[in-house]
Amino acid sequence: MKIYKIPEATVMRLSIYSRFLHQLSGEGIEKVSSGEIAVGAGVSSAQVRKDLAYFGEFGTRGVGYKVDELYGHLLKILGLDHKWNVIIVGAGKVGSALALYQGFKERGFTISAVLDVDKSRIGTKLEQVEIEPMEVLNQRVKENNINIGIVTVPASVAQDVTDKMVAAGVKAILNFSPRVLKVPNYVILRNVDLSVNLEVLSFNLGMHR
Amino acid sequence: MKIYKIPEATVMRLSIYSRFLHQLSGEGIEKVSSGEIAVGAGVSSAQVRKDLAYFGEFGTRGVGYKVDELYGHLLKILGLDHKWNVIIVGAGKVGSALALYQGFKERGFTISAVLDVDKSRIGTKLEQVEIEPMEVLNQRVKENNINIGIVTVPASVAQDVTDKMVAAGVKAILNFSPRVLKVPNYVILRNVDLSVNLEVLSFNLGMHR
Repeated sequence: MKIYKIPEATVMRLSIYSRFLHQLSGEGIEKVSSGEIAVGAGVSSAQVRKDLAYFGEFGTRGVGYKVDELYGHLLKILGLDHKWNVIIVGAGKVGSALALYQGFKERGFTISAVLDVDKSRIGTKLEQVEIEPMEVLNQRVKENNINIGIVTVPASVAQDVTDKMVAAGVKAILNFSPRVLKVPNYVILRNVDLSVNLEVLSFNLGMHR
Repeated sequence: MKIYKIPEATVMRLSIYSRFLHQLSGEGIEKVSSGEIAVGAGVSSAQVRKDLAYFGEFGTRGVGYKVDELYGHLLKILGLDHKWNVIIVGAGKVGSALALYQGFKERGFTISAVLDVDKSRIGTKLEQVEIEPMEVLNQRVKENNINIGIVTVPASVAQDVTDKMVAAGVKAILNFSPRVLKVPNYVILRNVDLSVNLEVLSFNLGMHR
């Protein structure tokens, strides 16, 4: 199967489709049309078909998709057919909430380690994971086969933490700090700003004023 | 200024551009090219020009953009030229982290109220905001002129909470629960799944395997 460059918005929608299919499967539903997926995901059915078409032919014309089969395909496409180990650096409010977030586990992401420089935090536990000092970064990444790092430190130290993660062998970074980060070409970087979500709302509210 | 239908991805990038311009302004930089914005935001300069073109002509060919002027335009486009009051329902881990998140305040979003049904949480404080019972929902929305609601409750009660928010007069909802929600046409709904961000990484890691 040849993979073309896939827009990020498509990947995000595939994630939503897969969640909806999981919900249907839980309700014992076996077949679904692109129109029904569209309603469930809040997009057009043309969008659903276009998104899925990047990855080949899944459905049968006039019959639709087999729920469990399409769900399995989407998990595979999303790289969720195996487990990923994740390290969080920065055990403040956002870092702690992420470490405790149940939704990650459900999708196959295990928070393997949480690091911080604050001595008052080190040694305390976030469920099963103990907060450890930055010094164990290299060891944890290697031992636990960690591919993904989450940066939840203040902006002033975000680049330094990122550089250390990359040096330790982390291949993909999710940046929650408001800093624009630099990473080598072979590292995947994704910036998350929680405010952006509110700004999409304020943009739309502003348009309707 | 005529506003065409703007892709959500564009709105999200405008938000990133505005943050980068704010950073430049803080460094005393007065002029910037689309190429420089592109590098700062991690996109192509053609993308920057295309995104800005939705809203008219900002820059001067060969000269670029005035940092403060473009920043002001972007804030206005994003609806950030005035303050927004926000209510959070669900003071669990995610809700509490959001209530305490400094980034919202910086962008003009004030968490005016946090509600929960859990008696052990009601009366405790998240910085200045006291957690209150659901019964005050209508009153808070009216008194504090709240337009935006954040849903951080378990999936099983998310639709019920959303219905109550809409009835109280909330015009835009940010849904952090894994539930697919239904809202009337005049209400703006945005689903945030924190796992999706990790899935964009695992998708890309999977592609490179």
